[in-house]
Amino acid sequence: MPRRCFGTSRKSCAAYTTDKYPSIKRDSRFAELTPEHVAFFKEVLGKDSYVIDGVNAEVSVDDMEPYNGDWMRKYRGHCKLVLKPGSTEEVSKILKYCNDNLLAVVPQGGNTGLVGGSVPVFDEIVINTSRLNKIRSFDDVSGILVADAGVVLEVADQYLAERGYLFPLDLGAKGSCHIGGNVATNAGGLRLLRYGSLHGTVLGIEAVLPDGTILKDLSTLRKDNTGYDLKQLFIGGEGTIGMITAISIHCPQRAKAKNVAFLGVDSYEKMQSAFREAKAQLGEILSAFEMMDARSQNLVHTVRTDLKRPLDGEHPFYCLIETSGSNAEHDTEKLETFLEDVMGKEIVTDGVVAQDETQIKALWAQRESVPECLGHWGGVYKYDLSIPLKDMYRLVEETKAKFDESGLIGETAEHPVVDVVGYGHMGDSNLHLNVAVRRYDDRVEKILEPWVYEWVSAVKGSISAEHGLGIAKKNFVGYSQSETKIKLMKQIKNLYDPNGIMNPYKYV
Amino acid sequence: MPRRCFGTSRKSCAAYTTDKYPSIKRDSRFAELTPEHVAFFKEVLGKDSYVIDGVNAEVSVDDMEPYNGDWMRKYRGHCKLVLKPGSTEEVSKILKYCNDNLLAVVPQGGNTGLVGGSVPVFDEIVINTSRLNKIRSFDDVSGILVADAGVVLEVADQYLAERGYLFPLDLGAKGSCHIGGNVATNAGGLRLLRYGSLHGTVLGIEAVLPDGTILKDLSTLRKDNTGYDLKQLFIGGEGTIGMITAISIHCPQRAKAKNVAFLGVDSYEKMQSAFREAKAQLGEILSAFEMMDARSQNLVHTVRTDLKRPLDGEHPFYCLIETSGSNAEHDTEKLETFLEDVMGKEIVTDGVVAQDETQIKALWAQRESVPECLGHWGGVYKYDLSIPLKDMYRLVEETKAKFDESGLIGETAEHPVVDVVGYGHMGDSNLHLNVAVRRYDDRVEKILEPWVYEWVSAVKGSISAEHGLGIAKKNFVGYSQSETKIKLMKQIKNLYDPNGIMNPYKYV
Repeated sequence: MPRRCFGTSRKSCAAYTTDKYPSIKRDSRFAELTPEHVAFFKEVLGKDSYVIDGVNAEVSVDDMEPYNGDWMRKYRGHCKLVLKPGSTEEVSKILKYCNDNLLAVVPQGGNTGLVGGSVPVFDEIVINTSRLNKIRSFDDVSGILVADAGVVLEVADQYLAERGYLFPLDLGAKGSCHIGGNVATNAGGLRLLRYGSLHGTVLGIEAVLPDGTILKDLSTLRKDNTGYDLKQLFIGGEGTIGMITAISIHCPQRAKAKNVAFLGVDSYEKMQSAFREAKAQLGEILSAFEMMDARSQNLVHTVRTDLKRPLDGEHPFYCLIETSGSNAEHDTEKLETFLEDVMGKEIVTDGVVAQDETQIKALWAQRESVPECLGHWGGVYKYDLSIPLKDMYRLVEETKAKFDESGLIGETAEHPVVDVVGYGHMGDSNLHLNVAVRRYDDRVEKILEPWVYEWVSAVKGSISAEHGLGIAKKNFVGYSQSETKIKLMKQIKNLYDPNGIMNPYKYV
Repeated sequence: MPRRCFGTSRKSCAAYTTDKYPSIKRDSRFAELTPEHVAFFKEVLGKDSYVIDGVNAEVSVDDMEPYNGDWMRKYRGHCKLVLKPGSTEEVSKILKYCNDNLLAVVPQGGNTGLVGGSVPVFDEIVINTSRLNKIRSFDDVSGILVADAGVVLEVADQYLAERGYLFPLDLGAKGSCHIGGNVATNAGGLRLLRYGSLHGTVLGIEAVLPDGTILKDLSTLRKDNTGYDLKQLFIGGEGTIGMITAISIHCPQRAKAKNVAFLGVDSYEKMQSAFREAKAQLGEILSAFEMMDARSQNLVHTVRTDLKRPLDGEHPFYCLIETSGSNAEHDTEKLETFLEDVMGKEIVTDGVVAQDETQIKALWAQRESVPECLGHWGGVYKYDLSIPLKDMYRLVEETKAKFDESGLIGETAEHPVVDVVGYGHMGDSNLHLNVAVRRYDDRVEKILEPWVYEWVSAVKGSISAEHGLGIAKKNFVGYSQSETKIKLMKQIKNLYDPNGIMNPYKYV
């Protein structure tokens, strides 16, 4: 099930790809689509239904909409052709032809990204992975899964659940995002704390290079030290040097026991203490530590009136702690001991522990509903930042103070800003700073940028912890990376994609 | 403390770098060292003692020996100059000069590798990391360590132990190997099963490129999605595209409780069952599952008469299981329940559990002594292979059968082969096939190669699980990698090191 924004008022938000970046011009080196090009693709893909053709006006602009825009309605392209290849070989033929004919392309999975990475900017051809959707193999001794790029994350996880295993990545968009897109964007998500990053868990990839070369590197070995680990360039490469068509990944066993606690905390100082204690006392069974401020929860409960607040009264901060282990009795004992300890030391003010799977889901909904609820009023300025833990929440406070000063924040329609909230993956030092707005507004943006990036750069953080660069952060990468590194990145791009047809106008 | 081979008879083994690879000729593009070159380096490094100079005959061949040979006495170079820079800037000046003057170099850490990767082949200059040996910083909330490349692994781990943390890598050579070398060779070791590979735990590197460019990418963030993850090319790059001068790495908390069990098992079938049960029942606390065959243990106890056999009688296989967790009582209960279960089901024949730290060390010594004891008779043919679990031990049996047929194996001096043994990291599907010999012998090698590589290739394994390619496996990489991938690897090499001065004659 796709999880998308709801509410209708956000339609008033102007999409902003090229409006927002007026300096970006269509690269005139790229060819314009002709009926002859379209005829070639129709021949390769066999059936017309796999080619969504706006060139010959066979479909309307509305039919193209899901491929031309993102769910936040923030980025908007003008592609006239969507291709849905059904095999790696078809991807190879498509890319070779595009490269030979200088046709720019955008690889696209579930299109759930937050930085415009999977949305065309101008008329790039969308190559969508939805038909590359097969599980290729699974070894239930080693836990290694090989699957097509277009398998939906939740589908992969469900397949693994039936076999006692777990996909080592989980995130709010799991119902619609594709695992190939997850790897291409190096998605982080809710359980990186426990299972580590995709750079460690992905064992191999199959990818097609712009010239049609198929790089078949679907290793099913946990250890293989035979040369440069090239697949790593594609993990987080955002489709700029090739298109991932399949992955192999090491999956952990699914925990037999799971516990979730939802706690109220008085201050960010105490939140840090709670995290330190959780790491020390819950150790190897800690699988998530999520932080939310009061304002983020207030917005959730304004929109999701169906959700019950887990705790009485309001607390300045909330955290969700999850444990996953192999022995329910041991895990419960560890969690109870921890809770008694942190309540006794007054680190935590109030708390509740889920008693069954339904309650576990209800508690997780408090956290997972935040991103979608923030869009309710119209739009969201989203910042996905890595910040040293001690400094992390200070950025939210300072941002809020700036808006309070500006007079742009308030409860009525003339105020563009609804609220400034902070939440995120405490365990990974990953803050989501979000400014919920009634409409995108230059005055709001001027307050935020480049101030936020400068702030993050000053504390040696990262301007994109897990969402990637896309088009949104292309111009700001210098706040996180040195000139030397950007130069080396450009070398890699030129090496693999000398014509620059892969996902142009984005990344570095 | 360096852990090296002991016994003296191995001196009879002929070293084999260029003897073994007669097709390798010194690349005439490289300059020969002159006194002027040496004078430059002496000026850069400030003190004479940091330059070991065989060019001006200031030192003898014996002084050069530790840098020109490996501990197995298998690889031998003829370098006349060893440089020991004390800073990244010095490395930069050295490499730039070498690149400008076409002087070939070999980056060298503790020189504990097994594939000749850190030993010169001809007269390459050795750049040794031993003076880059400082811990730069440690954050005891996030567990992130930043340290110079030349810090000895055991020193780093001891530093972390004092702060309640653990280096997420452990291996037999820890007393002398350098962490920079570990990262450059993507070392796997004893606890990859639990803490994952260095591709996941290393967060950043500082490296010097051949042209002297310093790539300063010492991120201390667990999440940073701002561009291609270039550091990954250096992890396992074996010093062929640049020299690592520092790393940042995410370290887990040191477990409060540790248990080690040593078990006797009747067959390889039962060994696989024991592994499956251990994964299922010990789950998140399982930190090592090591397999040894009877012959490997017999050789250990022939050499190490000081070591007591942990079990009565002889068993066809042994395994060492380690658990690491946050609650001693829970861990002990899990381990006891597991042992009762596998003994009850007759998966395991006999077993012993360490009662204290001394016994833990004694049990680990049964496993960790294997590599050094095998060298006792003269030499070892070592194969470090990833093989699907079900096929893994069959290779040892078939290799043994081939030698039995050949008449080359036996107890007396006219037989070159002492024994064929198998041991390794069951948890990572990583077999160490070792042939202990009295002397290196062409007839032995003809039986082994390319047969072993063909065998591994046929079951889709890897010819180097964790030791790397070095010079030993350069010519065999085609058994594990496709032509496409080898071509792409060569592109990367040419991109970073167009003059080919970095660790030549090796890798791909």
